[in-house]
Formats: sequence, C-alpha cells, structure tokens
Amino acid sequence: MSKYMRRWQLKAAGRDNLEQVQAAIPTPAYGQILVKVAAVSLNYRDKLLVDNGFGMPETLLEPQVPASDLAGSVVAIGEGVTRFTPGDKVISTFVPDWIEGDGPGTARTPNGRTLGGPLQGVLAEYVAISEDWAVHAPKTLDHIEASTLPCAGLTAWTALVERGKMTAGDKVVVLGTGGVSLFGLQIALAHGAEVVVVSGDDQKLARATKLGAHHVINRKKEDWVEALYKITDDYGADHIIETIGGAHLDKSLRAAAVTGRISMIGILDGLEVSGGFVPLAVKRLVLEGIQVGHRKGLENFVKAVDRLKIKPVIDAVYPFDQLNDALDHLDRGPFGKIVLELK
Amino acid sequence: MSKYMRRWQLKAAGRDNLEQVQAAIPTPAYGQILVKVAAVSLNYRDKLLVDNGFGMPETLLEPQVPASDLAGSVVAIGEGVTRFTPGDKVISTFVPDWIEGDGPGTARTPNGRTLGGPLQGVLAEYVAISEDWAVHAPKTLDHIEASTLPCAGLTAWTALVERGKMTAGDKVVVLGTGGVSLFGLQIALAHGAEVVVVSGDDQKLARATKLGAHHVINRKKEDWVEALYKITDDYGADHIIETIGGAHLDKSLRAAAVTGRISMIGILDGLEVSGGFVPLAVKRLVLEGIQVGHRKGLENFVKAVDRLKIKPVIDAVYPFDQLNDALDHLDRGPFGKIVLELK
Amino acid sequence: MSKYMRRWQLKAAGRDNLEQVQAAIPTPAYGQILVKVAAVSLNYRDKLLVDNGFGMPETLLEPQVPASDLAGSVVAIGEGVTRFTPGDKVISTFVPDWIEGDGPGTARTPNGRTLGGPLQGVLAEYVAISEDWAVHAPKTLDHIEASTLPCAGLTAWTALVERGKMTAGDKVVVLGTGGVSLFGLQIALAHGAEVVVVSGDDQKLARATKLGAHHVINRKKEDWVEALYKITDDYGADHIIETIGGAHLDKSLRAAAVTGRISMIGILDGLEVSGGFVPLAVKRLVLEGIQVGHRKGLENFVKAVDRLKIKPVIDAVYPFDQLNDALDHLDRGPFGKIVLELK
Amino acid sequence: MSKYMRRWQLKAAGRDNLEQVQAAIPTPAYGQILVKVAAVSLNYRDKLLVDNGFGMPETLLEPQVPASDLAGSVVAIGEGVTRFTPGDKVISTFVPDWIEGDGPGTARTPNGRTLGGPLQGVLAEYVAISEDWAVHAPKTLDHIEASTLPCAGLTAWTALVERGKMTAGDKVVVLGTGGVSLFGLQIALAHGAEVVVVSGDDQKLARATKLGAHHVINRKKEDWVEALYKITDDYGADHIIETIGGAHLDKSLRAAAVTGRISMIGILDGLEVSGGFVPLAVKRLVLEGIQVGHRKGLENFVKAVDRLKIKPVIDAVYPFDQLNDALDHLDRGPFGKIVLELK
Repeated sequence: MSKYMRRWQLKAAGRDNLEQVQAAIPTPAYGQILVKVAAVSLNYRDKLLVDNGFGMPETLLEPQVPASDLAGSVVAIGEGVTRFTPGDKVISTFVPDWIEGDGPGTARTPNGRTLGGPLQGVLAEYVAISEDWAVHAPKTLDHIEASTLPCAGLTAWTALVERGKMTAGDKVVVLGTGGVSLFGLQIALAHGAEVVVVSGDDQKLARATKLGAHHVINRKKEDWVEALYKITDDYGADHIIETIGGAHLDKSLRAAAVTGRISMIGILDGLEVSGGFVPLAVKRLVLEGIQVGHRKGLENFVKAVDRLKIKPVIDAVYPFDQLNDALDHLDRGPFGKIVLELK
Repeated sequence: MSKYMRRWQLKAAGRDNLEQVQAAIPTPAYGQILVKVAAVSLNYRDKLLVDNGFGMPETLLEPQVPASDLAGSVVAIGEGVTRFTPGDKVISTFVPDWIEGDGPGTARTPNGRTLGGPLQGVLAEYVAISEDWAVHAPKTLDHIEASTLPCAGLTAWTALVERGKMTAGDKVVVLGTGGVSLFGLQIALAHGAEVVVVSGDDQKLARATKLGAHHVINRKKEDWVEALYKITDDYGADHIIETIGGAHLDKSLRAAAVTGRISMIGILDGLEVSGGFVPLAVKRLVLEGIQVGHRKGLENFVKAVDRLKIKPVIDAVYPFDQLNDALDHLDRGPFGKIVLELK
Repeated sequence: MSKYMRRWQLKAAGRDNLEQVQAAIPTPAYGQILVKVAAVSLNYRDKLLVDNGFGMPETLLEPQVPASDLAGSVVAIGEGVTRFTPGDKVISTFVPDWIEGDGPGTARTPNGRTLGGPLQGVLAEYVAISEDWAVHAPKTLDHIEASTLPCAGLTAWTALVERGKMTAGDKVVVLGTGGVSLFGLQIALAHGAEVVVVSGDDQKLARATKLGAHHVINRKKEDWVEALYKITDDYGADHIIETIGGAHLDKSLRAAAVTGRISMIGILDGLEVSGGFVPLAVKRLVLEGIQVGHRKGLENFVKAVDRLKIKPVIDAVYPFDQLNDALDHLDRGPFGKIVLELK
Repeated sequence: MSKYMRRWQLKAAGRDNLEQVQAAIPTPAYGQILVKVAAVSLNYRDKLLVDNGFGMPETLLEPQVPASDLAGSVVAIGEGVTRFTPGDKVISTFVPDWIEGDGPGTARTPNGRTLGGPLQGVLAEYVAISEDWAVHAPKTLDHIEASTLPCAGLTAWTALVERGKMTAGDKVVVLGTGGVSLFGLQIALAHGAEVVVVSGDDQKLARATKLGAHHVINRKKEDWVEALYKITDDYGADHIIETIGGAHLDKSLRAAAVTGRISMIGILDGLEVSGGFVPLAVKRLVLEGIQVGHRKGLENFVKAVDRLKIKPVIDAVYPFDQLNDALDHLDRGPFGKIVLELK
C-alpha cells in the first residue's frame, strides 16, 4: 500500500477552487476504521457546498473535502474497534453521531454535524472514520450501488417507513425523479403502496412508469393536485415526499388526504416554506422535517434492500477524476443518482 | 314548557345583522336529543362568523345560528336514542361526525362540518341534535364551566395529550392567554410538564403565573425564542401550542427542541403559515394541524377534568341577551373564556 | 321476490340440532339494509358454536343462526340509511359496534357482541343488518372470495398492519396454514416482509411455498424455533401470528426477535396461554390480543386487497345446503378458507 | 487517595460466600470514568444473585461483585471521555449497552448484559465503568436517593411513560409496595392518573394512601379484581404494573380495561406466566415485557424527577459494611427501597 492517495478538496467556496491533491493515507486512531473507498455518491447538497459553501462560505474547513456517501472496504482498524474487521464492506452514515432514537442536539444548536460539511467529507481514496460512522453494506449490491444508500436512500426510507409507517394500499406521491424520489418510488412499491410520480418531464415520467409507478402526472401540463384528486377519487395522498419545498408546500397541503403526512425534504423552491393553514388544520395533516435518518434506520434499510432486491437507479457513473463532469450532470437534474467510481 | 324560545341568528354577515328572534322549540327526530341550553361558550371563530362569515359570507345559512359550544340538560329524546335519558347533563361536540380515529372527509372536501357554521349553531334556549353529537358533561363542573370544553378545552387536550402524548418533564410553550392557551397551561401542569407562557401583556402573565406557569416571557420586551433558550439551557420546547400562526411559525420552529412538536391551531397572524426549512429539517420537527378533536377525545378529556379537578378559566359571564357585549369582550382579547348564560 | 327464504339455525348446541328452515324474509328497520346473501365464509369458531355453543350452550339464542362472514348485494334499505344504496355489493363486519379506535366495552363486560353468536348470524338467504355493520366489498373479488375477508382476512390485517405496522424487510412467522395464517402470508409478502411458514404437513408447506413463502419449517420434523434461528442467523421473528396459543406461546416467546410482536389469535392449544417470563422481559416483547378488527380497518384492508390484487386462498366451496359437509371439512383443517355459496 | 478500597464479592453462590475484601482501586481505561461510590441501592435480583446465582450458579464470575445501582462522583476520567468531568455526580445504567431505541441482542441471545451479573457489579468504594454506562444524577436528590433510580425507578418510568404513554385521567393499578411499585405510584400521580394500590398489608396500604394513592385494596381481604371493578365503575385499569407475574397474570388480564396495557416486570409468582386467552383477545390487551429501560429513558426520567420533585421512598439506609442486614431486610419485603451508604 502506497503512503499517498488522491483527494478532492476545496480551498474556498466556488467550483474553481476544487482541486485534486495528493495526501497522506490516514492511520486509524482509537475506535477508527480505515476504508479504501470504492465509490462515492453525490447529492445536490454537495453541489451547494462546492458552489457557495451552503451560503455560508466562511464556515468551510481549510481545506474542505466534499461529499458524504461512500462505499468501500475496511483495510485496517484502530485499537478498540469491535464492529468491523478488515475485509468488511461498508457504507458511511450521513449524520455520524445519531445512532438511534432522537440523537444529540438542542433547539439553539441542532446536530448539523454531517459528513462533507461541516465535517470533512469522503472524496478520497482512503478515509479514516469512527467505526460508529459506518454500517455493513448490503450483500446484494456492488460498491457503486451501495454508495447511494447513506443519504438519498435513507432519506426516503426514513420518511416512508421509519417515520411514516406506510402500509400496503397507502397512496404515495413522489415529487420529481431525483435520487430521493426514485428511492421513495421503489420503497413504496415494495410495501404495496399506490404510487404517483409528479414531474415536468415526460421522458422521465416514462422511465418512472417503467420502474413501476402506477400513475404519473406532468405538472407542466396540468395542475398536479387536481390530477391527483381525479386519480384517487378525491381521496388524496397518505404520504408526500416533498422534495421541492418553499411555496410549493401549499400544493402538497391541498394534495394530502385527511391525516396525511408530508415529509419535508427538499429546498428546490427555497429555504422558506409556506402554505395554507386551512387544509393543514381541517385535514389534520402532519408535516415532518426529515434529516436523512439514524444509523439504526440505515441498518434496517440495508436489510430491506437485500430482502427486496432493490436496485438503486443510477443515471451515470464517472471516474473519480471527472468530478467536474459529475457536478455538471447534477446541475442538469439527473434521473436517480450520480456516482464517482474509484479504481 | 312553552312552545317558543329565544334564539340568536344572523340574517347575513355583519354584526348589525345579528338578531334575537322567537322560534319554535324543536322536536327531537329519530336519534336526536332535545337539550335545554344552560350556557354557551364563545370562541374567536364565532366572532369571525358574525363579522364576515369566515370570509365567505355567501356560505352562511339563512338564517345562520352562531356558536358551537353548549352545556345543558337533556329534556326529551327521539326514537332510537340509547346514549342519553332526560335529565342527563351534556355538552356538544365541535366536529359532530367525527367519533374516533380519522373520521370522514377527502383531500378535496375535508370534513369542515362543524356546529355554528356551516352547520346550525347552538345560540338558542333549546337545541335538537343527534345523540351522536353530545357527550356527558363532567361531574365536577357547572354548566358555565362545562360549556368551555367542546372547542377550546378539547383543542388543547388533543394537541398535548391525544396527539402529543406529553409526559412529565416535557417542556411546553403556550402562546398567549386565550381559552386554548390557558387550557394548554392547565393540562400541561396536570401532566407534570414544565410550562412557559408567552404573551405581550404583563398583567396577563402575572395571572398565568398565579395559575402555575413555571416561566413567563413578555414577547414585547424581549425575543421570546432567545428567552426560552435561556430558560431551558438551550434545550427548547418539546411542545408548542401555536395559536398565532402565519409568519410567526418561524419563531416556533426556532424555539422547538430536537424532534419537538408544533400544534398548528391559531390564525391571529393570517391564513398562510411560513417559516424556515433548516430548523424544521435539522431538528426533525413535527407540525400537526389540530381541528379541535374527536368525540372519544372529548370523553377522555371530560374524564381527566373530573379526575384532575381542572377548573376552566372564565374571564366573564354575560346574560344570553348581551351577546353584543360578549362579542366586544372577545374583540379585546379575553384571559381565558367568555360564556353566555341562559336562565 | 318471494316472502320466504332458507336459513340454517341451531335449536340447541350439537351438530344434530342444526336444521335448515323456511323463514320470512326480514324487512329492513330504520337504519338497516337488507342484503341478499351470495356467499358465507366459515370460521373455526362457527364449528365451536355448532358443536358446543363455545362451551356455554346455555347462552345460545333460540334459535341461533350461525356464521359471521357474508358477501352479498343490498336489495333494500330502511329509512335513514346513508352509506348504501340498492345494488351495492357489501361484506359484513365481525364486531358490529366497533367502528374505529378503541370501541365500546368495559373490563368486566368487554364487547363480545359478534355476529353468529351471541348475535344472530348470517347463514340465510337474506339478512337485515344495521348499515353500520357492513362495508363496500372489494372491486377485484367475487362474492365467494369477498366473504373471506370479514374475519380471517381482517384478523391478519389487524395483527400485521393496523397494529403491527409491519415494514419491508421484517421477518414474519405464520403458524399453520388456515385462513388467518394464509392471509398473514399474503399480506406480509405484499409489504416486502420475509415470511416463514410453520406447519406439520409437508404438502401444505409445499403449497405455502407456491404462494411465495420464503421459508417453510415442518414442526413435526424439527424444533421450529431452532430452525428459525438458523434461517434468520439468530435474529428471530419481528412478528408472529400466534394461531395456536395455549402452552405453545412459550415457543413463540423464544422465537421472537428483540422487541418482537406476538399477535394472540388462536386457541388450538387451549384457552389458557402460558410461557416463560425471561424471553418476554429480556427481549421486551409485545403480546397483543387480536379481536379481528374494526370497521375502519376492514375498509383499509378492502382498499389494499384491490390495490394488491390479493386473491384469498379458498380450499373448497360448498352449496348452501351442504353445511354439514363444509363443517366436516373444517374438522379436517383446511388450507385456507371454506365457503358456502348461495344461488 | 489510598490505593486500596473495600469491595463486596461472592466466591460462589450462597450468602455464606459473601465476603468483603480489600482490592486495588481501578484505573480508568480509554473511555472510562472512575466513580467514587456514595450509595448503592439494592434490588430483589441482587438477593437472587447472592442466594443462588439467579438459579445458574455456574455462570457467576470469580469473584462476582453484586449490585447494579450506584450513585457517586466522578473522580478521574480515562482518555477519550467526553460526557463527564471530575466532580460530576452520576448514577449508573442498568443495561449498559442499550443507549436508545431497540438496542443490541438477538432472539437466541438477547442482551442480558447487566451490571451485578453477568457483568461485574458496583458494591465497591470505587468503580471504573465506560462513560457510556452512566448518566448525570438529578440535581434535586442526594446520593442515597439518586441511587434508587437506575433499576426500580427507570423500570416504572419505562412501563408507564416511555412505553405506556400514560396520560392524565388514566387508571393505573400498582401491585405491591416495593421499589418499582412505589415509583409507579409517584410517576402516575405526577401525570394526573388515578392510582389504585393493591397489597396484602393494611399498614403498607395506609402508607401508600399517605403518598397519594387514590384507592387501596387489601388483596387478602377481598378479590382485588372485583374491588377494582367497583372502584372504576367496571371500566378497569388502563395500565397495570405486574410485579407478581406467574399465574397471577390471569387476574391482571381480568382487571385490565379495553386495550389496557400490562407491563410484565416481576417474578414473585414464578418464571412461567399464564392467564386466560379470552380477556386478552376480546379486550385487545397489550402485554409488554419490561427490561428496566435504556439510557435515554433514564435521562428523561432524571429530568422529570427534577421537574416534579419526586422523592424516592426509602425504607432503610444501611452502612456499607452491613450488607447482610440489608439483604435480610430485602427478604422481609421493604416498603420502597433499601440503600447502602458509603462514607
């Protein structure tokens, strides 16, 4: 094993400040595992980190390594490690300190310590992390597929299963066809739910239908809420994967069934959410903010992926060196996930 | 028993259109009970109905009887009635068709069928309603006190207990000192919670302290969210009774503890709610719309009121004929409830 | 329409006392619907009623009509009926007074008012019942199939879904291959669960495998708990459909995973349940008694059956007149359900 | 600080094999804290360990230190410790590896790793434990009082609050007047519940009444289930703290209200629990095994104790050297807790 490795890092906010460097391969400290990274899945937030440091460029580490989702193999372990041995295939957890239940944090200082900002990220050939920050990878997926679970996959799982307790026959609306949305579609189908996919792109809707969506609505061609009423005979949606947010929430409030759940996930329509009080109150809706999920949830999800043989939808795989091409693809709005492969 | 009774009704929206009339005492139909009304509690929504028909004056019945909350005695029963006998003391339910669980309604047409608009109200000496629309009154309250439970009392109970599952040691924030808020204070105290009351009026805060509030914050004198952080050592609030709504929600999002619950109840700040996505997601908050509550919840609440010896806070009692004075008092913002008494 | 109809009734406990009589077709009273019965599904409890009046022969009505589960068409409605119109296809509810939530009953006098004992049953060509005691039949099933839902189907649905909140990847153990068990298998498969069927009959296990069971265990050939440990890598079962009961519960306690759920349904091994305290406490198991389910649950189940295209497993259909043959078949232990057809 | 300390240990099962020895004060390893023990609370299980090694004397450590519940002060910390600093007052957790949620363990090998058997116990002047195995002590209790929380207090809290979600007005039955039962009484009172204490000793019942019990029943003088029916007007109990177990469960099944919860805690009546199926199913009861509780629950309980000013009921305090007298007192059945004090 060489002493050096490749790593992507940001000197400062801005895509021009991305650089690939040679760095020392880290040594695992007490309780840490050293992972040889095989794949890194990118999320929209990685783009925001690179472009503007999530709007707070002054909070970036110097240098800051981006990205949160890795799949790879344990190659060495530090003292005191009990959950893994060299050779184990692992994936990372997105919110490392959150094992189960409520986790840490206060009203004033919530737990925003996530990989790839404000913590260091995983865009490197080797990463040393606490053994508590990883789980065993699914047996039925390869590294590239497995790398998509920690953020996008777990977010959909947390919303619909851990928190939503979705059951067969429930009506589920998935907004868009990005990574979280397509995982939402697949997870909902696996539970016997009736799934409606809403998008502005007929080609993507056609692909969603192929994946098993029962109904699709092109929101550019019709009012998707009215279309949903028609599809469901006015019943509405038991669960909505709200990946757009902002003022779009108002539509989701109208679309939700009595006592329906809206999982607040995305910010494509801005960081201030808004909507009408009347449907919220008269239908007794539940809105819940989703922060990806805890480690126990990821373990449950891995178990379900193996059981259900869910295959993550991957739009494109780029070599590690072509990070910029991958980010450009993210800009265009992928159908499912974008992954960087390390060889 | 006379054949005629007094009744308040609206010819059309607008307080000038309120009139007291003489009407025939109704006869209970199949499944109905005839109640001799002893007290009617007023809610802010009754004021909105009278003033402008909830902003939809064209939907008013002709004539429309206002108000939803009665306490009284059953004086006659129709055929098929099994839950009551003459002499029983009863209170009304706010959402009559909602017995338990989720109740009726669809996404397009939620169940807004509530007493006092769009259904006929109870501001009359006698009211005939389905036996399903009433529950037995608490044994430890008189009619005046009992009349405050169906809307304000049950709303707070539903938010904190039926849905919120509040437990001892939880931190509860109550916004304002109206009927729902003071019931929230009393119910939270009875469960061993730590209660913070926020208001802009020092005199009302002093009265809240007398009722047992552990902490009070004058929101006109300081940022109540920051004050709450200090009081709770940054922990925040497990439950917030959001009686203000609108853009004020943003403050509640900041004030909530990790996985805190915000019960959406009031509209003093407008019918569009809005707030920041970040605290919602990173703290994984739950917002839930509260539509008063179901009949089973009211029965549970009545049981608890008797057990806990909760005495509703009544700011003033007016004779039935002085409805206009009572509405003026509502305009000024009462400390607790306003009740009309019938003799 | 003739004025008379065929009806099965018991003069007293004992199969010899079963008689088919000619009776007047009933007229629907206020709130009632008249159903032309097309199919009646039999349950093990019907056999117990006929044979010995559930061990309390003195409580039988005189005469007592057996059976609880009908499918048929509404042919007339009484005054005040709002949920059905003539022509609607319906199925009955097993616990008629239980609409949603907790329902009626006390500790001393629980609500055992179920169709076919102690209430009158449905083994007749026409039945008049409260409209509250029926729900709309699934659209994707014929009468014979639909008649199996009210008791066996809903019991499995309540255990696994309404109460159990089963999710994909959960491990479910189904004991036996009777009606409840096979519905349990089908419902669990539809939710993406991993299902293990335990039986003492290799032929039935082969049929269960054909229905999709992931694993089968012949409890006569091996200790099924040890076999389950092996299959699940020691994890155990998240949900157990305990159709045997009695002292067999001890095995289920050992088989259950940490925080697993055991749904108490059957009494093949007697009316006193027993088992070890240690696994119950150290694994923090939840045992829950299942009394079939409420009407809202049946409506949810009907919706799911249509969505999932679940086809009930029917072992044999007998003409209405051959009740005795059908009861003999019940004695032998059917694979799935036995149904009587009316023409 | 001396290098040696006093410690109680068992050479083998049997009270005669208890010995107090001088042992080296341990040094905290990586992640450990060194606690100067100020008080150790005894539980019935400690007596079983000493007397017969829980019936499995061969599993005892050599030597085995008994007892699980300590209160004391941190006097030194190992490397990597982040949750405590010297001077902090702490109490121990009963199931050390269970932080939150479901925790570790399998169906075959549940997590029975608890302090004082099979792990080493805390009956020593100094104890070195992982920082994960302790929580901050309540501010309103002294060491002696605080030492009663980890097992008895948390068990009652888990049963009624974390799992039971008890609310005001609920009816709670507490069996006996030992440590768990009296904590159950106090916690239930603090939540506004109506509490019934059942015991065979009038003097203890009189003391329970003084603590606030609403009703008491002497089970030696009357059938406690019938008495409960009378007290509750047939309603029964929403929650039962089942500290007796064995065949006594049958009485609790009869006593429980519709959908009532029975928390399985004690084994005074043996290690095999048994009872009737009919009340279990028809009332849809929930039985749940309680294994004390997780660390997050203990933290919640500590918070509530401070808020509610709950003062644990302590029957007697013995000097550390008088362990045998304390065990004799346990044999006689204390009213509340027995604590050993270290000076």
